[in-house]
Amino acid sequence: MIPTPYLLFLGDAPDQLAAKVAQGIRDWRPEFALGQLRLPGCGADLKLADMTLTEAHAAGARTLVIGVANRGGIISAKWKTVLLDALAAGFDLASGLHNLLRDEPDLVDAAARHGRTLHDVRVPAVQYPIASGVKRTGKRCLAVGTDCSVGKMYTALALDTAMRDAGLKATFRATGQTGILITGDGVPLDAVIADFMAGSIEWLTPDNDPDHWDLIEGQGSLHHLSYSGVSLALIHGGQPDALILCHEPTRTHMRGLPGRPLPSLETMRDTALVMARHANPACIVAGVSVNTQHMTEADAFAYLAEVEARMGVPAVDPFRQGATRLAEALSAL
Amino acid sequence: MIPTPYLLFLGDAPDQLAAKVAQGIRDWRPEFALGQLRLPGCGADLKLADMTLTEAHAAGARTLVIGVANRGGIISAKWKTVLLDALAAGFDLASGLHNLLRDEPDLVDAAARHGRTLHDVRVPAVQYPIASGVKRTGKRCLAVGTDCSVGKMYTALALDTAMRDAGLKATFRATGQTGILITGDGVPLDAVIADFMAGSIEWLTPDNDPDHWDLIEGQGSLHHLSYSGVSLALIHGGQPDALILCHEPTRTHMRGLPGRPLPSLETMRDTALVMARHANPACIVAGVSVNTQHMTEADAFAYLAEVEARMGVPAVDPFRQGATRLAEALSAL
Repeated sequence: MIPTPYLLFLGDAPDQLAAKVAQGIRDWRPEFALGQLRLPGCGADLKLADMTLTEAHAAGARTLVIGVANRGGIISAKWKTVLLDALAAGFDLASGLHNLLRDEPDLVDAAARHGRTLHDVRVPAVQYPIASGVKRTGKRCLAVGTDCSVGKMYTALALDTAMRDAGLKATFRATGQTGILITGDGVPLDAVIADFMAGSIEWLTPDNDPDHWDLIEGQGSLHHLSYSGVSLALIHGGQPDALILCHEPTRTHMRGLPGRPLPSLETMRDTALVMARHANPACIVAGVSVNTQHMTEADAFAYLAEVEARMGVPAVDPFRQGATRLAEALSAL
Repeated sequence: MIPTPYLLFLGDAPDQLAAKVAQGIRDWRPEFALGQLRLPGCGADLKLADMTLTEAHAAGARTLVIGVANRGGIISAKWKTVLLDALAAGFDLASGLHNLLRDEPDLVDAAARHGRTLHDVRVPAVQYPIASGVKRTGKRCLAVGTDCSVGKMYTALALDTAMRDAGLKATFRATGQTGILITGDGVPLDAVIADFMAGSIEWLTPDNDPDHWDLIEGQGSLHHLSYSGVSLALIHGGQPDALILCHEPTRTHMRGLPGRPLPSLETMRDTALVMARHANPACIVAGVSVNTQHMTEADAFAYLAEVEARMGVPAVDPFRQGATRLAEALSAL
């Protein structure tokens, strides 16, 4: 677990998009986002209080989160002074960069001297078990996609918000770097050793109250040749009771695989249900989540209506509409 | 690549079964098995010449392979003297033990001093790429199983032998520790980082002659909840033209998962073909390989005839019958 709340480090982010991770924390866990720390020339602004390390620590912040992605994922010299000062001021550091905090000897040394922890969320911090396949109590929903980067994390986070707003018991379960930085814990599944993938998801979604829902962030796609094994481990480790199918209708080919078209929602549904029912014969598809950001509002709503009629389950864009109807579909199970 | 030929170290193996890896090398790559080195009290015998390190090196052996599995997979003190002497005598060392050679400071030091290499086949030695999904030239056959440990490695090795005996172009592609020690190279797939699983199999089975067959060792099972992600990465990374279904008919539940029955061969076929055709729409099931070791010969042959009639493809036990009919089925494609 990464100690909260956070001071969000935006560094010298050239624009808002470069601060996507910090934006995600601010949007989905505003209670963790105490303030922002920007360097001269920073082009991003989360509309949070600009704080010095001292001010933020006095206000209760316990971790400085690197909320900015730069070219190459490296820790720049400009940042280093701030990171060292943060450790001295009593902050843990958290990062999802390729360039690991633990590979920087001066940070390792300073963390040791000040008794602080470096959280590299890109690498697992836990020795996960081999999956046992034993059914756990409580309910689980997994976002599965027709492709990578179609909105699976966003869908699970929106569902989490909608269910908690409705007074239902729910926990978002992060399986990727951004999700882990947003919520403070999770499994960096793409970095887990092959044999332990499904076991890491069992570990992430343990026994719970019978009416509690784990909302598991999906990864990759069963149809994506590069990452399908990761997706299947999520399905078999998560043993979901419900799937939400996630789709981006304007995409012309699988991400990174030119010439390979996306599966239809029907094909995706049928493939995912067959595999999910190996683990949980009662698994159903509860809804469809469509990322319509590249469509006009009129086109988006027409498409959603068409999908809903065709698939026989609620079809929504959680960004345009929220995930209330998906949450209702889950709570009705 | 592990330098060949080998001197096979049997240590103080209590019985023949403990020397299973060495036996595999002797059975499948006799040309690599120059001799054996046994400690006092060794209960295993490969019927190879007993050689000292000096004799074996003079005869051309270049790697001392730890061909014995002991309790806990550790490198015992009794063995250490031999391993150090081997490095001094000009041998590389190769091991599939959990206890890595590279974690023994005295071995690391001796290897450095003598300019030798420690081959820990349990951990990847290569930074594999992300899978591209691009079709390669040449043909590929993958052994898929209804469960773990049903004979997938044995089947692929037997096919390799049968195809080469028939003058066909074929290469066994190892994906597990034992297979790697038998053949001298391969990918230890269960130890690969999740994101690179499919890419490691593309790397292992590159472009080849149009009439060349890669015979890929399978791992796990699409139906095994603990390891299914690994199996799917093999299917999508290998892009097989043909599958051989491997089965052990007397097994009462999935290995390590009490209460979970094995899928039928028909269910296995249908699941595997749907997934394989994502990558290669022309993929077919070329045959069935049955491990009948726990059946009488009469029962085995009756069962094989029944499966062959039911499935419409050759069904053989390669241990009892060889894999000639499976090789013929592949070469007919």
